[in-house]
Amino acid sequence: MSFPRVGVIGAGQLARMMAVPANDLGITLKVFAANANDSAAQVCEFVVGDYTSAADVISFSKDCDIITFEHELVPQRVIKALEQSGVKVYPRSDSFTYSQDKLVMRAKITEIGLPNPKWERYEGGPTQISYPLIAKSPVGGYDGRGVWVINSGNELAELYKNTGVLLLEEKLNFDYEISVMVARSAHDQAATWPATLTVQKDGICTQTITPAPELSKELAVKVQSAALEIAQAIGLIGVMAVEIFIVGSDFYINELALRPHNSGHWSIEGCKTSQFEQHLRAILDLPLGSTELRAKYSVMGNVLGGEKSDMYRPYLHLMARTPSLKFHQYGKEVRPGRKIGHVTLCGENLLELQQEVEHAVDYMSGVIDE
Amino acid sequence: MSFPRVGVIGAGQLARMMAVPANDLGITLKVFAANANDSAAQVCEFVVGDYTSAADVISFSKDCDIITFEHELVPQRVIKALEQSGVKVYPRSDSFTYSQDKLVMRAKITEIGLPNPKWERYEGGPTQISYPLIAKSPVGGYDGRGVWVINSGNELAELYKNTGVLLLEEKLNFDYEISVMVARSAHDQAATWPATLTVQKDGICTQTITPAPELSKELAVKVQSAALEIAQAIGLIGVMAVEIFIVGSDFYINELALRPHNSGHWSIEGCKTSQFEQHLRAILDLPLGSTELRAKYSVMGNVLGGEKSDMYRPYLHLMARTPSLKFHQYGKEVRPGRKIGHVTLCGENLLELQQEVEHAVDYMSGVIDE
Repeated sequence: MSFPRVGVIGAGQLARMMAVPANDLGITLKVFAANANDSAAQVCEFVVGDYTSAADVISFSKDCDIITFEHELVPQRVIKALEQSGVKVYPRSDSFTYSQDKLVMRAKITEIGLPNPKWERYEGGPTQISYPLIAKSPVGGYDGRGVWVINSGNELAELYKNTGVLLLEEKLNFDYEISVMVARSAHDQAATWPATLTVQKDGICTQTITPAPELSKELAVKVQSAALEIAQAIGLIGVMAVEIFIVGSDFYINELALRPHNSGHWSIEGCKTSQFEQHLRAILDLPLGSTELRAKYSVMGNVLGGEKSDMYRPYLHLMARTPSLKFHQYGKEVRPGRKIGHVTLCGENLLELQQEVEHAVDYMSGVIDE
Repeated sequence: MSFPRVGVIGAGQLARMMAVPANDLGITLKVFAANANDSAAQVCEFVVGDYTSAADVISFSKDCDIITFEHELVPQRVIKALEQSGVKVYPRSDSFTYSQDKLVMRAKITEIGLPNPKWERYEGGPTQISYPLIAKSPVGGYDGRGVWVINSGNELAELYKNTGVLLLEEKLNFDYEISVMVARSAHDQAATWPATLTVQKDGICTQTITPAPELSKELAVKVQSAALEIAQAIGLIGVMAVEIFIVGSDFYINELALRPHNSGHWSIEGCKTSQFEQHLRAILDLPLGSTELRAKYSVMGNVLGGEKSDMYRPYLHLMARTPSLKFHQYGKEVRPGRKIGHVTLCGENLLELQQEVEHAVDYMSGVIDE
């Protein structure tokens, strides 16, 4: 055995953050970038190519021992072509499809008997689900894109004309949203992290709190069990985020993402093993690391691009104000609303942690004046 | 202000570990390597050159905002030439000399009134220090090299013939050795970490424990104050290791290293701010980070090359046995006795932490059979 080479399709911040544990473990990470200045291409060996081209991706994979993904946009035909070319691909295409096609995912969750919102495959005509309802593009949507609130049959018919097949879901009046990260290796070892509260604004996650503070112990166990059950049922190899709605003492599966996920960024500082290291261990079939917490609470805030273009100057104020705050810059040009980094703060006093994180992200994006 | 570029003279594991917080902070790290396959050159932008050539080093520095060092071997004339060329160099040459010339260091410690062992500049003839004594090359020694135990006047005369000027020191019968890491910024903000016990074997540090478990509270405060005092007195900008001997309730300064140091590696996992991040903050004159501990104890073990050439295969056993163990590979070819990596384990039960770390490094170097 010798140190493996891992190829990642995609070169955004997830691949960039995967590079840290890869280097620590002596593993070479090579990324398949869309552009030479992509986030991970700044810190890794990289190849520029088109992830919709099987030839490009297969050529990239030639000197890799394992191929993995940092986004869901790689077409199934490309993943299958990779698999047929003989290279190890984790997660496998038949698992990865559950994070690519929401209709396939809903059917699977129903099959294994876990709680879905009421849902329906829509191809025109009347629906059994009452209005207002949620309509989703089965493929390609994220961060609020490809998701619509529909108030009437007319609106639905209008949307369908433009989109074709839709996934319809009842609009749950949920109390809050959580995410449970889970890892599973080829050896069938699995591990979860405590559930994370994801605070959303306009469909984009702005802050996370781990462990989710209002979640009852009973529900915490149930959602972790559900995540493990799904991982097993879909043959997950790697890490996965299971996004979940909480309604009273009930939970409903929202979405699956078979990759390191924004809701797991807290684990870099807050946990003995980060989601990025765990993903590498899982796809390389190494024993999984401990998911013990290193702090009572970890609060993560996404830094969204705003008025300010200089993300360095805010350090002078923020580092002096909050000496424990950890910064993660993604090396991306500032554009309004774009996720350009995140900050994490760990400690005991949840209210204080939340306030400091909120202050930091507002200050960096220019919502608070200097 | 915009994200700065930091140039590091040297491309070993210290520069490699500095690259992680640099990337997180959005700072570009460029390293001046001796060879293209140096530890840090594998993960950073790099230039190959000769650090004894002022022209090479000045040329390297042209597109950097700050220059710093990861070893003490850069000649004073090169550092001074850099400073005269107008580039910011931290630590400055007049501070850096205290980690390069042990005679200059001893004189400074005496001047500021901190406890030295009895010492003497030796240029032949009789000595006031009783035998056995320690003789040291004033410059160039490390990891037990350039240090001799001398038992008689004849031995001393013989050594002097080969070496020239020596630093002589009384051979203290010390209880144990510790190291105190300290950081100071250009703004005169300073911070220390708790003292670290350094377990030595044949002059090489094999394991560290933080906080040093047997150190009394009184002595812990005294040595941290001493480190802060030295940092102030020598105008430190960056981080520094102050190596100290403990004899009963007394302490004696041993050596200074004005750079991230092996005795501070535990801080990557064990502390809210690692020595590598703190060094960057200090030289960039950013507010320093919190040095609060993230665990009761952190134990670090150096992985020394042994019989085994494959450092990947041991993961199968070690990750399964100790799921919280963190690995740091330096990307160096295995050679007997060479530091090729380290492992860190944080927790509450010190004995268990030490046993697991010792097992891991022995297993990796082949002292324990598979």
